[in-house]
This record gives sequence, structure tokens and C-alpha cells, in this order.
Amino acid sequence: MTQLWGGRFTGQADELLRKLNDSIGFDIRLYNEDIDGSIAWAKGLVGANVLTQDEADQICAGLEKVRKELADDTFELAAGDEDIHTAVERRLTEIVGSVGGKLHTGRSRNDQSATDFRLWVKRASKHIAAEIAALGHAMINHAEKHIETPMPGYTHLQHAQPVTWGHWLLGHFWPLVRDLERFKAVHNQADEMVLGSAAFAGTAFPVDREALAKDLGFSRITQNSLDGVSNRDYVADFLYASTMTGLHLSRLAEQLILFSSTEFSFVVIADAYSTGSSIMPQKKNPDTLELTRGKSGRILGDLTGFLATIKGLPSTYDKDLQEDKEPVFDAFDNLSLLLPVMTGVIDTITINPDKMASQLEAGLLATDLADYLVKKNLPFRQAHHVVGQIVQLGEVRNIPITDLSLEDLQEISDLFEEDVIEAFSVKGALAARNATGGTAPEAVKKQIVEARKALS
Amino acid sequence: MTQLWGGRFTGQADELLRKLNDSIGFDIRLYNEDIDGSIAWAKGLVGANVLTQDEADQICAGLEKVRKELADDTFELAAGDEDIHTAVERRLTEIVGSVGGKLHTGRSRNDQSATDFRLWVKRASKHIAAEIAALGHAMINHAEKHIETPMPGYTHLQHAQPVTWGHWLLGHFWPLVRDLERFKAVHNQADEMVLGSAAFAGTAFPVDREALAKDLGFSRITQNSLDGVSNRDYVADFLYASTMTGLHLSRLAEQLILFSSTEFSFVVIADAYSTGSSIMPQKKNPDTLELTRGKSGRILGDLTGFLATIKGLPSTYDKDLQEDKEPVFDAFDNLSLLLPVMTGVIDTITINPDKMASQLEAGLLATDLADYLVKKNLPFRQAHHVVGQIVQLGEVRNIPITDLSLEDLQEISDLFEEDVIEAFSVKGALAARNATGGTAPEAVKKQIVEARKALS
Amino acid sequence: MTQLWGGRFTGQADELLRKLNDSIGFDIRLYNEDIDGSIAWAKGLVGANVLTQDEADQICAGLEKVRKELADDTFELAAGDEDIHTAVERRLTEIVGSVGGKLHTGRSRNDQSATDFRLWVKRASKHIAAEIAALGHAMINHAEKHIETPMPGYTHLQHAQPVTWGHWLLGHFWPLVRDLERFKAVHNQADEMVLGSAAFAGTAFPVDREALAKDLGFSRITQNSLDGVSNRDYVADFLYASTMTGLHLSRLAEQLILFSSTEFSFVVIADAYSTGSSIMPQKKNPDTLELTRGKSGRILGDLTGFLATIKGLPSTYDKDLQEDKEPVFDAFDNLSLLLPVMTGVIDTITINPDKMASQLEAGLLATDLADYLVKKNLPFRQAHHVVGQIVQLGEVRNIPITDLSLEDLQEISDLFEEDVIEAFSVKGALAARNATGGTAPEAVKKQIVEARKALS
Amino acid sequence: MTQLWGGRFTGQADELLRKLNDSIGFDIRLYNEDIDGSIAWAKGLVGANVLTQDEADQICAGLEKVRKELADDTFELAAGDEDIHTAVERRLTEIVGSVGGKLHTGRSRNDQSATDFRLWVKRASKHIAAEIAALGHAMINHAEKHIETPMPGYTHLQHAQPVTWGHWLLGHFWPLVRDLERFKAVHNQADEMVLGSAAFAGTAFPVDREALAKDLGFSRITQNSLDGVSNRDYVADFLYASTMTGLHLSRLAEQLILFSSTEFSFVVIADAYSTGSSIMPQKKNPDTLELTRGKSGRILGDLTGFLATIKGLPSTYDKDLQEDKEPVFDAFDNLSLLLPVMTGVIDTITINPDKMASQLEAGLLATDLADYLVKKNLPFRQAHHVVGQIVQLGEVRNIPITDLSLEDLQEISDLFEEDVIEAFSVKGALAARNATGGTAPEAVKKQIVEARKALS
Repeated sequence: MTQLWGGRFTGQADELLRKLNDSIGFDIRLYNEDIDGSIAWAKGLVGANVLTQDEADQICAGLEKVRKELADDTFELAAGDEDIHTAVERRLTEIVGSVGGKLHTGRSRNDQSATDFRLWVKRASKHIAAEIAALGHAMINHAEKHIETPMPGYTHLQHAQPVTWGHWLLGHFWPLVRDLERFKAVHNQADEMVLGSAAFAGTAFPVDREALAKDLGFSRITQNSLDGVSNRDYVADFLYASTMTGLHLSRLAEQLILFSSTEFSFVVIADAYSTGSSIMPQKKNPDTLELTRGKSGRILGDLTGFLATIKGLPSTYDKDLQEDKEPVFDAFDNLSLLLPVMTGVIDTITINPDKMASQLEAGLLATDLADYLVKKNLPFRQAHHVVGQIVQLGEVRNIPITDLSLEDLQEISDLFEEDVIEAFSVKGALAARNATGGTAPEAVKKQIVEARKALS
Repeated sequence: MTQLWGGRFTGQADELLRKLNDSIGFDIRLYNEDIDGSIAWAKGLVGANVLTQDEADQICAGLEKVRKELADDTFELAAGDEDIHTAVERRLTEIVGSVGGKLHTGRSRNDQSATDFRLWVKRASKHIAAEIAALGHAMINHAEKHIETPMPGYTHLQHAQPVTWGHWLLGHFWPLVRDLERFKAVHNQADEMVLGSAAFAGTAFPVDREALAKDLGFSRITQNSLDGVSNRDYVADFLYASTMTGLHLSRLAEQLILFSSTEFSFVVIADAYSTGSSIMPQKKNPDTLELTRGKSGRILGDLTGFLATIKGLPSTYDKDLQEDKEPVFDAFDNLSLLLPVMTGVIDTITINPDKMASQLEAGLLATDLADYLVKKNLPFRQAHHVVGQIVQLGEVRNIPITDLSLEDLQEISDLFEEDVIEAFSVKGALAARNATGGTAPEAVKKQIVEARKALS
Repeated sequence: MTQLWGGRFTGQADELLRKLNDSIGFDIRLYNEDIDGSIAWAKGLVGANVLTQDEADQICAGLEKVRKELADDTFELAAGDEDIHTAVERRLTEIVGSVGGKLHTGRSRNDQSATDFRLWVKRASKHIAAEIAALGHAMINHAEKHIETPMPGYTHLQHAQPVTWGHWLLGHFWPLVRDLERFKAVHNQADEMVLGSAAFAGTAFPVDREALAKDLGFSRITQNSLDGVSNRDYVADFLYASTMTGLHLSRLAEQLILFSSTEFSFVVIADAYSTGSSIMPQKKNPDTLELTRGKSGRILGDLTGFLATIKGLPSTYDKDLQEDKEPVFDAFDNLSLLLPVMTGVIDTITINPDKMASQLEAGLLATDLADYLVKKNLPFRQAHHVVGQIVQLGEVRNIPITDLSLEDLQEISDLFEEDVIEAFSVKGALAARNATGGTAPEAVKKQIVEARKALS
Repeated sequence: MTQLWGGRFTGQADELLRKLNDSIGFDIRLYNEDIDGSIAWAKGLVGANVLTQDEADQICAGLEKVRKELADDTFELAAGDEDIHTAVERRLTEIVGSVGGKLHTGRSRNDQSATDFRLWVKRASKHIAAEIAALGHAMINHAEKHIETPMPGYTHLQHAQPVTWGHWLLGHFWPLVRDLERFKAVHNQADEMVLGSAAFAGTAFPVDREALAKDLGFSRITQNSLDGVSNRDYVADFLYASTMTGLHLSRLAEQLILFSSTEFSFVVIADAYSTGSSIMPQKKNPDTLELTRGKSGRILGDLTGFLATIKGLPSTYDKDLQEDKEPVFDAFDNLSLLLPVMTGVIDTITINPDKMASQLEAGLLATDLADYLVKKNLPFRQAHHVVGQIVQLGEVRNIPITDLSLEDLQEISDLFEEDVIEAFSVKGALAARNATGGTAPEAVKKQIVEARKALS
């Protein structure tokens, strides 16, 4: 079979060029969107008096037949099917005869493929958003059980102050809310109909673009035909949103890997999300989490590569733009796995409050000691300095600062009194941080209400 | 002078570490935001009964004095001023005495620096948005003069169909509208107050965070203190939005460079935006546009580097996050130059309609010829094929297809009649594409109305 | 069938985890290397007295049978075949019985998979190098025909000085020589045998690693077992070398796209490497070159993503490293197409010397005019300034500077004499630049000798 | 003062353009290289009979005077000094008069700046290589003291098998050897002289390029003038080599951060390389290591940004190439800090063998148990499975597998005999891995010899 644009060519298309040029290997995933777009276009052509209603009916019935073949996996690719658009039209024409050749009137693959891809990206964004929300719910549900479970909090991976496991986990929840906002923005960017831009100068047939947009579920239409066919911002936006979600998952994964090490032993990842070793029989490895971390790098590569590809391209259509689909499919496929897997990990994780508690050493309360002095009206800077000396004394004597005597403390500052003992309590330290967003159980309860609200 | 955290340390800080660790070299840019934040915090501490009104007044007056010194460039850095927060507090304490040491009560550099940077990013986003809008207006104004100036349109950099210069330029306008949306989203992401998160567990003093947010102009407060101090999504968002704007400018630059080559000669860049050669006296180089193209790569590097930096970091604060400011400053500084320069380029560009017209060869009307046949009821696919044969005939005879005789045409298809001549007119081709977003002067007029609306 | 590491697990492996975790979908490409490695290891185990010669013979025969099944595409994947190593060993054991279970003695998938991949990367580097060399030869052969074909040379895409087409094309040849050096370095980095590192601590069986290396064609062995299993520098090196080759091809493609525009018309890309338009019948698009440009961005993404993935990983093996293969396969597959296609493009390109000549306007000789004055002993800076005034005069009068009269010139500088006419010759300008590397035909002849030498 | 290329221009250069265009702010770092290049060029012009020896002497003396002013920081920038080349020549002409205007004969800023930068990159590569080697020596010296200090080895951050601290640290040494190879390759790529390429077509004056190269310390000359001025491969190579070194440091930093957490407590970073907290007085944070990890992302950004910048540029010189220096300076400055700081960290690190030993639990010897069974002739796969059951039994009973009785073991496999006890020894496990590159003290001793050799 000859190619779509075969009339003009005398030379034989080089075999390697075919392999390089053809996109059917990956854009076949767009078949539903392509057929949806074509059906809408056929209707539009009726309005423009290019097709009779009868012709449009034949075409639409033919297209549905093609769709069924593709869905049933009985569709057979022919030699010239370089992309999904060509393949569908070729098969349509075999089914309905030469009337099929009227379908491409007034449109181009440039606006057709952009329309298909926008439809796909819209659906993909919704799917990812749903998976993010599911993970968010899993995290809230888990956190809710642990708003009073203390653990050491870290900065610089050093013991810092006590927090609760519930509060800690919710620290990984809020990034997901921002991810949802980003995917919503992606959906909105994609939600603009290109059809009617033709190759890039606009269609020369009086198709009602607004009606077409409504028919296809787009909320608005593009305002400039050149920008319409060349715009891939929604692609970059999708890749960026995916990258950010990937990074958020990677950060959570990093920390769970750490917490599941023998030295921490704060959590146990369920067997279903772990794997073993081919050589070390005792191993139970958090492969799931490591792949999450690893694949977030890959999605960043998808983004970077695509941005480099579109940099410096002239307006309208250049073939470089064909490179838009594979990174998006790659990011989507990976996130579509990583998100539910992380939901599973959270749903089945076992935590070890005893191990966490065993790490709640006295040093974590040093800030509370400084706050104690502040309440005795010592300026914070001086309080901070005093406590620094106390910490040093503890280190010199090689004992926890809680084991220093009141006399020891008073030697450093005479503001210390009997009531200092109370300042050295994890429970007290937690309860004190009850401003909005703080780790106090009371505050976390309110946070959970807000978190649920953010997902709804 | 000792460092803030000096009480505890016995060893001498290594000189190289100082150089590595200190951020004062770049975060001094945040001094206004830092002082704004501290003034608000002082007021908050009054509400929390940590400071008396009188102490707060002293501190605020002192801070304003520090601000003045910084603004007047009379501020002198001291040895221990590792960052802007330390420098301001050190100088404050010199001015107001030990009461200055009370200011840091209940906060940490973690929530302080995040607050400063959010304030800065909010302002920066507004500034960039204003520059984008200015460029947008320049483009609309220029385009408006050329809605009937025909030029060859290109896909694959090959002559494709006629468009107008005004329509072409507006093809580069709409991406700016999307850039505005992205910077608005960045502003919204940054518009959340972190203060009150302290190191990461929440402040232990009853400061009214909502009042504080209002005071500082934030529209809402963070809901989780761990996420509050570790969240740098707004930084990544700023870098991503900047990258997209950079890429859009790069695409426009690429095409203007091309159009200002001798071979095209469609445009002349004003002398004020060009440079010469140190060896070739006749040269006039579009350096401005080349730097625009080049710097868009650099901003992409700022984004990629930062994303790689935050990948896999645990939650809360890790020092890696200090690497958040320089890429943002770099992207901001470069865009702050590139945008007004591009506005200047557009404002002063000279176009050469004759040269554009001279490239409007007959081949550009081939699609119109196909559309002619479609209107004679030939299915588009066959029409496309017929015109392909005509193009080939022109090439074989080495004449423009407009010079083929009616008989020549009719030998290929008997649908051709006398009226085909009218189909071969640039004016007709332009006028035919009058759907929304099309290149027809009438459509472009409407587009300009929409464009102005999009900026307001 | 149970997994390799099945003994320890009670939970059911989650279906999604399987999909996330399994690498058989892509690492099946390593089957030859895996079997080569296993055969060598079996021999090594004989030397270590773990296997008898007879057992090794059975195993090797079995492995060859597995290889044949894989080559003939009769190999059937089983449920637990998570990667190529598992699949091969599973099938081996089916064929040879329990003796197959002895093969994994003293090794781990960690050193096994690294060995496989190093073997593959070595072969891949050689393949790419051969394709680069083939392109280099095509370029030299083409250039050789055009060492006297003048064309305008450009800087900043502006007319600058005359060069020859042969010299210009060779400007894109030398980057390939550097690419060859880089791929040679990649080969050398990969050419180190890891086997015998086991999981990461070293094998506990006395296998002769040097003999093993020789057997597998490695030139040396790794010196530290932890680094051995975690080192992926050769992967990054391969991706970097591929990126650079991609960028070089992209730069050449960019310029050929430009030169094949109607406005330039310097070259015609053969039909076999062009495509048409679905809507514009006259179009002939340089898709091949655009995809070359586009795919170079994608390879850059492969590199960036991988670098982000390995950043911050601890030493030894983390599952993140499984992400090493797909970017390499992607880069390899794309370069394996792009290189021969570019060779084909060069082999079949038609150049249009008349069009090039028509662009050789007088301004290109301005430098020669300055050099003329220098030879009259005017300091270059002043000469440059004088010629600048001449160029301006030509612009004011709207005539080429060659059309200015001697009197006109003398009014600007009295150093001009009759012999200035000769300075205005393209042939003279070319011939004057005959230092090594210059555009003079004589110099290009020598360059071609050096170019051929560089490939041999 | 007018610009170098001022003769031709009538418009006023826009102020923003100046800011955008000028590179003097950063390329002033190249002043030594620029002056070296100019002195060599002056000598070359004598050979080409463009300058008399006396003129060259004046120029060279003048250039040395300029150099002194720059070194002493008494050089005053003038308004038109857009880059270092212009600034030096302007000042030179002020000093020596109009003869200074002869210096630029036959060269262009294109070949001049490429020459300067190559000289700088050569020196920079040597400097970084020396710092890498210093770190390497520090690691070897430290490792040498700990070839018998056992610690748990990890894969997937899970306990795996015992190794020694010395062996572990050397696992981070070998990547540095590869870094040295890469910087050597960078040096070699930069070591090619461009001078004599002029703007891009070659110089028209008979300067002896080979002599010039020798004079400037280049080992060879470029073979194509177009490639000469446009080639920035050595820049990309430098950035890539820097990125890899950064990643290697980042991996080491990541692990030391982990090992210095309270939960691990394997190492203590010296106070000199740590910092404190502004709010938590007890904190001692590994900021140095975190910045190392963070800055490695930034260097990756330098690389990515530059690669995106050069993608798709035509050959010869485009102004985009001015973006080559800042990423290199940034990477260099950061590595120049990170490397000696890491050397300092290693030189002063305290390790805690007791903590390491306390983590050497029985599970780490599971592989040795499997090897024991293999030596009793059980195929490894079955041995692996048996040990898996033993591990599970230990978990069920909640005791270390070393506490299982011989009867327990024999119930699972009758191959276990009295001598199994010896297989459960850390010392034995270490000693068994004595193949080249293994963790056995004996093997590590040999490794250290090889490591020293690799640095010499």
C-alpha cells in the first residue's frame, strides 16, 4: 500500500527511515481518542456541508467497527500504517469505500494528533489524580491511628525534637495535595480544542469549532491556529507534575527504606512489597521503595529530555514534536504502578513504637529546656547558649543530660528550679506544640480534618 | 564573634567549611523579606506574651535601622554572619542590646528562611508576570499592524501555506498567556505562611499564626510543620515556570534569527539590539536573540539541578535545601533581562513585506487546489493525490504549478474548470481560513480582542 | 513456580509489585551475555573444585540449549522468571536437573548482572563506533568532491566570509572523531570484570578471577568487590557519549534543515529520506533530520534521568540500579537508527552550488578589505573601523560595497589603490586562508588526509 | 568609549542589552590566559611579518603591564569593556599607543576566546585532579588502619554480610580513580590549539600554528577552522567529569550522614566539619556532607543546562556559546571546595568499632551457612532454600539463628554437623572472601597496594 503522501514521491523510502519515522508502535494507544475525534469531525463536516448526513453515518459506523477491531485485538496493521491516524483511516476506507477519503477534509494530522493527545492527557491526569487521592486517604487513615505515638524527629538526619508518627506521616501527605493541584492544572491546560487549526493556518471549511469542542468534552477552543498545532505546554506540564509526584514518592521511599533498616527498625514493610536475595537467604529487601526512588529519576529524565527537545523549535509543526508521546507514556505507566504500590505499602506497613520510643533520648528535649529558660525571661539566645553548655557537660561526663543533677544545672544558670523536671517530658514536649500544624495530638486531630477536606 | 550555635563546639570551624557553608553571599538579597518577617514575628511574640509591647517596639525600631543600613549599603558584615538571618539579628542586638536575643524565641531559621523566601518568590513572580504582560502587549500592538501582511507559513521549515505576519507573531503570544497562568500558580503555591513551624515540630509559644499570615500578606497558613519547613515545591514551580517562559522566548528568538538571515531577510533587528564583529566589519549580529536562546538552556539547567538536589531527601530540613536560592536568583535575573529585551526587540523590529511576498510561490496554494477539488465533491484523499501529481508535473517541467495550463490540469483530473484560477490567490487562501484562530484577517481581528482580554 | 528467594516469604507477592519489579521485559536482551557469563563461571567453578568437569559439561551443554531456544524464539517464559538470570537458570535446571542448582554457587545476581551488562555495553560501544566511522567516511567522501565549491560562511547565522562546502561539511566531521574517542573510553571503562564480587563482599570460593576475565574477553578485573557491584560509571559514560553524538548529529541536522528551506535551497534531501504531508500535497519534509534533532533531546533525557537516579545512592547494590538498562537500550536503539540514516542522507544529498554562489555578496569580503589595509600597514583596529564606514556607505547608498568607486573608498582612506579590486575576489579570499585547518582548497586537501587518518 | 565593532552602528546600544551581552563580569577570570595567548600571537605575527620584532616587544611589555594591573587589582574597567579580550586590548592600546591596534590582525575573538578557555580548562582539570588524588590518599591512609575492623555490609540498606571498614571505604576510593581518568581525558580534549582559525574560515596571515601551539603548551592544533571555533566538547566533558565526581562525593556523603545518625552511630564527623542549630542546642549537624550531596545536584544542572544550550546550534560561532563559561566556573568552584573539605572530613573522622560490632548479628552469616551446605555438596539453590527456612524458624521463635540448636538445624537438613558452629564466625566469614577485591584482610592489603599504584 502506498503512503498517505505517496503521490509525489519517486524514490523508495529507506527501510531505516520507516523504522525511525513510524509512530504506530506507540501512538496506537491513542486509538480511542483518534476515533472519538474522527467521529466528532465527521459530524462537524455535516454542519459544514462537506458530508451528507448519510455519508457521516457510514463513516461513523465504519469508525466504530475499526474501534471494535482494535479493542478486540483483531485489527491487522498494514505496511503503510505509519501512525494511528493513517491506520484508522486506511482501515475505515477498506470498510466504507471511497467515502472514507472525505473524512480528512479540512483537517490535518497536525491538529488531529494534537487533539487525540489532549484527550488522552486529560484522561491520564484524572487517572493519576485518583491514584494520588487514594494514597492520600491511605496515609490519613494510617496517621489517624498514631497521633499519640511518639518518635524522634530529625533534621539533618540527627535527633532533633520528638514528634508523633501520625504527624510525621502527614508531613508526606501535604505534598500530594499540591500534586493534585498540579494535575488539575495539567487537565486545564490540555482542555482546549485544537481541531479546526488544520495544518497550522486554520481550516478552510466552515466547521463549527465551538460545537465540536462541546461534542468532545473540551471546555474551550484554541485562539491561534499556529500555536494550536505547535503548543506542547500541556505535555511539559504533565511531565513536570509527574516528576514532582515522583520526587515526593521518592522522598517518602527514602525515609521508609531508612526506617526499615536494622539500625532504625521503626517499620516493617509487608512481605508482599518486599523481595529476597539470590544469595543471602536472610534478606528482605524493600525493592518496591528503591524502585520508587529510582524511577523518580527516570521521570525527571523524561521531563528534561522533552524540554531539551522543544527548546529552539520554530513555531507550527516540526517532526521533533513526535517525540512528545513516549516520555508521557513512560511517566504515566510508571506513576500508575508506583502510586497504588505505595498505597499498598502504607496500608500494610507495621510500625514498631517500642523502637521509636527507645530512641527518645534526653537530647531531644534540649529545645524544651531552652524554652523553659525563656519562660523564666532569659532571652532566647542566651537560653540557647546555656543549654549548649549543658549538652557539652553531658557529653564530657558521658551521661544523658536528664541525668545531670539540679546542682549541675544551677552551676550553669541559676534560673533552674525544681520545676525543670517537668520540662524534660516527651509528652509535655509534644503537647506544647499545639499551634496549627504542630505535632501536638490536639493539633494533629485538626490537621486530619483539614487533610480530608483537601482531598474532597 | 562566635556563631549562633557556638556554645557547644570546641573545634575550630574549618575555613573551607565556612566558605562552603555560608549563604550570606547570596541570601543577603532577602534582607527586606527577613526584616518584614522579623517585625511580624516580634508583634506575634507580644500576642504570645513573650515580649512586652515596649520590647517589641525597641526590636522593630532596631530592625528598621538595620534595614536602612542595608538599603544605604552602610551595613558592615561581621565574621560570623553566615546568613542574612544571623547578620540581621547580630546587628539588631548590637543596636538594641540583649532584648534582641529574645526575637528568636519560638522560631527557627528553618521556618524563618522559608518564610523569607516565600515572600521573595511571591514578589518575583509578580515582577516576571508584569514583564511577560508587557511583552504580550508589544506583540499584540505589532501584530495589529500586520493582519493583512502575507508571508509564507512553514511546517518542517518548508513552505506550506500563506499566513499573515500578524497571525504568525500572535502564534508566539499565546504561550505567554500560559506562562502568566503558571506564574500565577507559583504565586499561589508560595502564598502559604510557614512561620510558627519552628524547626519542624511546631512552635511551643502561643503565637496567632493566622494573624501573622495576615500581617505578612499570606493568604493562608501551612497545615503541617514538617512539610512546612521541608516544602520547596514553590521553588521547583518557579524554576519550571521560568524554564517554560525561557523556552517560549527561545523559540521566538530562533525564528527571528532565521528571519533576519540574508537568505530570508524578512526582518531587521534594530541596531540597539544587535552587535558587531571584532573581525568582520560588515556584520550585524542578533546577539540578543542568541543569548535568549542560550540562556533558556541555562534556566533548564537550574530546574534540573534543583530537582536532582531534592530527590530522595528525607522530610524536614536537610542542609541540601540551602541550594534552593541560587538557581531561583539565576532564573529570575536572566528572565528579568530577557523579557524587556525581547519587548524592545519587538517594539523596534522592522519587517520587510516585499521579501515575504517574494517567497509566496505557487506551491503554497496546493492545499487550496485540493480544497477546490473537494468542493467539486472529490474525496479529499483523492484530491490530495491529484494535486501531488500536479506538483510533480511542475517539478518535471521546472515551472511553478500556476504556470501549468488548464489543459495540463485537466489531463490529470477532468474536474478542473475555468474557475480554478481564483483558487490560486494568496488573498483568497488567507480569507478562506476564517474559523476562530485562523489566519484570515477577519479572524485575526477577533483574535486580537481575545488576546487583549487574556492579558487584562 | 516459586521465586528464587522464595523460601523465606509467607505473604503473596502483590501483582503490581511483580510488574514493577520484574526486569525480564527488557533484560532478556542480555541473554547471550548472561549465558556467556554462566559458561565461564561454570568453568571457574571446576577450577575451584565446586563442580566436577562432568557437571560443568552438563551445565554448559544445557546453557547452550537454552541459548538456542532463546535465539530461535522457542523459549517459553514461566511465571517466576523475573529477570533473564532467573529465567535462564530456571530453564537450565529443567533441562539438566538439580545439578543446575550448583551454578549459582559463589556468585550473586549482583555480580552476574553487572558482568552481563558490561559485556553488552562493550559490544554496543563497538557497534556505535563502527556506525560513527561509516558516517565519517561518507562525509569525507562527499567533502572531497567539494573542496572548491564556494558558499557563504556564517557566524550568528549572518553572512560572514566565504568558505567551501567541503570545508563546511568537514566542520561536522571532526566532532565524530571525538565521539569515537569517547566510545573508546566507554569500552575501556566497561572492560573490567566484576564476576567474583558475589553480592558485594567477594566470593568465598577460590575461583581464578584473572582466568575468568581472560575467558570472557575482559582486559582486567575489579579491585574492590563493593565498588564492583555498585559501579555504574560505564553506564553513565555510555549515555554521555551517546548524548554528545546525538548533539553532534542534531547540529548537523539543524543546519541541513535550514539549507533545505526554499529560502536557502542549498541542498536537496533525497526523497528516500523525506516524507510528505497529509494535507499539503506539494510538501517534502526533512522528517529524518527533524527526528534526529528531536531524538538527541531524548537521549539527553536518558542521561539526566540516570544521573539523578544514581545520585546519593549508598555503595553496593540498591534496587534503584535496575533502572540502568532501559536508558542505555533507548540511547543505543536510537543512535543505531540515526547514524546510518544520516550516512544515507549524506550519501544521497544533492547540493546546489549555483544557489550558494548567488549568496556570495560583496559584504562577505569585508574582512579581506580590512586585511588589504593591514598589509598597507594600517593597524587592524583602524582598518576594521575604516571598513565599517565603507559598509555603512554601501548601506546608505543601497549598493553592494563592490559597486563603490575607488574615489568613494579613497574618500574614506587614502590607502586604497587600484589593486584593491583583487581583494574583492571570492577565489582570492578562499586561497588566502591556507593555514592548517583553513578553508583554502589546498588546506582542505591536507585536512582530508588527516581526517582519513583519524578514522583508521 | 566606543565598542570594538562601533564603526558601523548608528543606534544607541540598549542598556539592558549591555547587561545581557557583556561577559566581563565572569570572563575576567581568564585574564592570565588571555594575555598568554596574546603574547604568543604577537610573536606569531612577527613570524608572519605583520609585526616587527620591536613592535612585538612593545606589545608584549604592554601586555605584561596590563597583567600586573589585573593581578594587583589596580586595573580599571572602562565603559566599553564588554569582555576580557576587549578590556585587555583597550588598556594595551592606552599604554602602547596605536601599535596595540595591530595585535588583533588575523585573529578573531572567536579563536581567541576559545584558546583562552582551553588554557583555563587545562589548568582547572589539573587542579581538580590533584584534589581528587589528595582525597584518594586520605582514604587509603584511613582505610589502611581498618582492614580488620568488621562492620555489617549492606545491600538495599539491609544487613547482608560482614565486611571491614577499610574495605568499605575503599569502595568509595575506586570511583575517584575513574574520575582521574575522566579529568585526564578532559585535559586531552582541551589540549588542542584553536588559534589561527580566526572567525571560522582560518587566518589569512602566514602564522606558524605549530610553533604557536608549542609556545602555549598545546600538544596539537585543530584541523578544521569551523569546528575549531564552534567546538565546546571539552566544556561538556569538563562538566560531565565534574558531575560524576560530584555524584561520587554525594554517594559517600549520603552514607556518612547515615552512619553518623544516632541510630547507626558508626562515625562521628569532627566538629570542624559540622555545624549547630539556631534553635536546638544539642544538635551537631553534618552540613558539610549535606552540602556535598546538594551541590552535586547543582553540578548536574550545570551539565544539563549546557547540553541543552548547544543542542541544535549550527556550526561556527553563535552567541549562545557565551553561556559556556559560567557553568564551568560554577562546577569548578564548587568541586574546589567540596574535594578538600571531604579530604578533611576523612582525615578527622572518628569511627566507632564497637557500634559496628554490635550490629553484627547472626543473620549476616546466613550466606556462610549456605556455603557450608554447598561444601557438603548440596546444590547452592537448595542450600539457599534450606537457609531460608532456618531464617524463618529464627523469626518465628524470635531468636537469632545462631541460637538455634543443632537439632533444630538438622530437622531442616541432615547435612548439618558439629562443624557448623565454625561457619557462624564473623572472622571466618571475612577471611573466606580472599579473592582479589574481596573483603578478607589479606585481599584488602593487596588492594591498598593497587590503590596507591593507581594514584601514582
